[in-house]
Amino acid sequence: MEIKTALYLIPVNISNAPINDTLPAGNLDILRQLHHLIVENVRTARRFLKRCDPAFDISAVTFYELNRHTDLSQVGAYLEPLRRGEPMGVMSEAGCPAVADPGSLPVSIAQREGLRVIPLVGPSSILMALMASGFNGQGFSFNGYLPIDGKEREKRLRELENLSRKHDMTQIFIETPYRNNRMVSCLASVLHPDTMVCVACDITDPEKEVIKTLPASRWKNNKQDFDKRPAIFLIYCGKSMKG
Amino acid sequence: MEIKTALYLIPVNISNAPINDTLPAGNLDILRQLHHLIVENVRTARRFLKRCDPAFDISAVTFYELNRHTDLSQVGAYLEPLRRGEPMGVMSEAGCPAVADPGSLPVSIAQREGLRVIPLVGPSSILMALMASGFNGQGFSFNGYLPIDGKEREKRLRELENLSRKHDMTQIFIETPYRNNRMVSCLASVLHPDTMVCVACDITDPEKEVIKTLPASRWKNNKQDFDKRPAIFLIYCGKSMKG
Repeated sequence: MEIKTALYLIPVNISNAPINDTLPAGNLDILRQLHHLIVENVRTARRFLKRCDPAFDISAVTFYELNRHTDLSQVGAYLEPLRRGEPMGVMSEAGCPAVADPGSLPVSIAQREGLRVIPLVGPSSILMALMASGFNGQGFSFNGYLPIDGKEREKRLRELENLSRKHDMTQIFIETPYRNNRMVSCLASVLHPDTMVCVACDITDPEKEVIKTLPASRWKNNKQDFDKRPAIFLIYCGKSMKG
Repeated sequence: MEIKTALYLIPVNISNAPINDTLPAGNLDILRQLHHLIVENVRTARRFLKRCDPAFDISAVTFYELNRHTDLSQVGAYLEPLRRGEPMGVMSEAGCPAVADPGSLPVSIAQREGLRVIPLVGPSSILMALMASGFNGQGFSFNGYLPIDGKEREKRLRELENLSRKHDMTQIFIETPYRNNRMVSCLASVLHPDTMVCVACDITDPEKEVIKTLPASRWKNNKQDFDKRPAIFLIYCGKSMKG
């Protein structure tokens, strides 16, 4: 079946789990019909396509790179095939494009020009961490990275703790993976001992996944090594904690 | 293959799209091994299972209902099978459990008792709306429902607009579906004309999906009818709007 002319947002696996365990089969049917893909990195994009289907005809695909080295004024031109009526795709390095990555620029250009955008289903470590944390999923914020500097970071953490308490919202953030263990120590020492902290690491990985919620105080003696592993941090001290 | 003893968080389709287009095949393999399911509504849960697989053996499943009529002090007892070592599942009415629904209570109990929680991949209208909006995905808040009252609602909308501008964050919220059209008019009249508004409706539906981003002012002449359709609203007036 021929697919609609649109900018398809194509999630990528976030672990070594079998592709069929974390991506709908329908995504591949769409992917096979896209000959223009905006990706963060061509090499890993090719690897993903081959992993989805070893027989994937990569030679038929034109790649357009979008990452921090890209001249952003060029991104509008990437969408030429779409303007001509050819479907295109946006892929990120891992997870859902345009969430916590630079992929939202081509999407906003497409929206501005009235071009259709179709998001596909796939793993989002932010959302899956939220689901499994046990924290409030009816109000939450994703805050990206926190400041690296000690004082600034402490201040920001206390701010997020206050926001969680005041507005009953789960506060979510990420860290550069080699600093994960330092983040855990920092959370244990800076936050109120009863504030709940969830660390979600290697989500969807059948062997390595860890998603653990404990009061801040109990992370002090953390023995788990999160170093260089993809992780999401969540804190919560809202209403449902008191119930 | 036998699955791990855990509380599995099982997403449910959010439209009439074929199951294989929005849920990974692996979810069904897990679902078939669960004989204890916490659900919002038994009737729709059965229907979902039959839709996944007409041969699904529903008679082997015990259902535990969790919705606004449930005595919440009973929910801890639901997890008895899990404590004995049997895997269990949590399903919502649509989308990802424990996000914008009551499913987070059994999850938080499981976490408190050190029972394993495993989230599965599936459609989240909040996340998919964010992806397709073109708005900032590196900082965002989901705010649930806004106040219904006119004055209160206006105040809250201006608050969200300010938060978006000040912290460069996408602000996401929902509405009772029969009030969707009124919400669109309200956004068009209350927000700054240049604040961007995305309405995402019937996400994943192959025929009816609409995901449209326009400046608030351009929603004034909206002809699209969103009445009684599942919708997500997003507003943004942060940094990337100026670029």
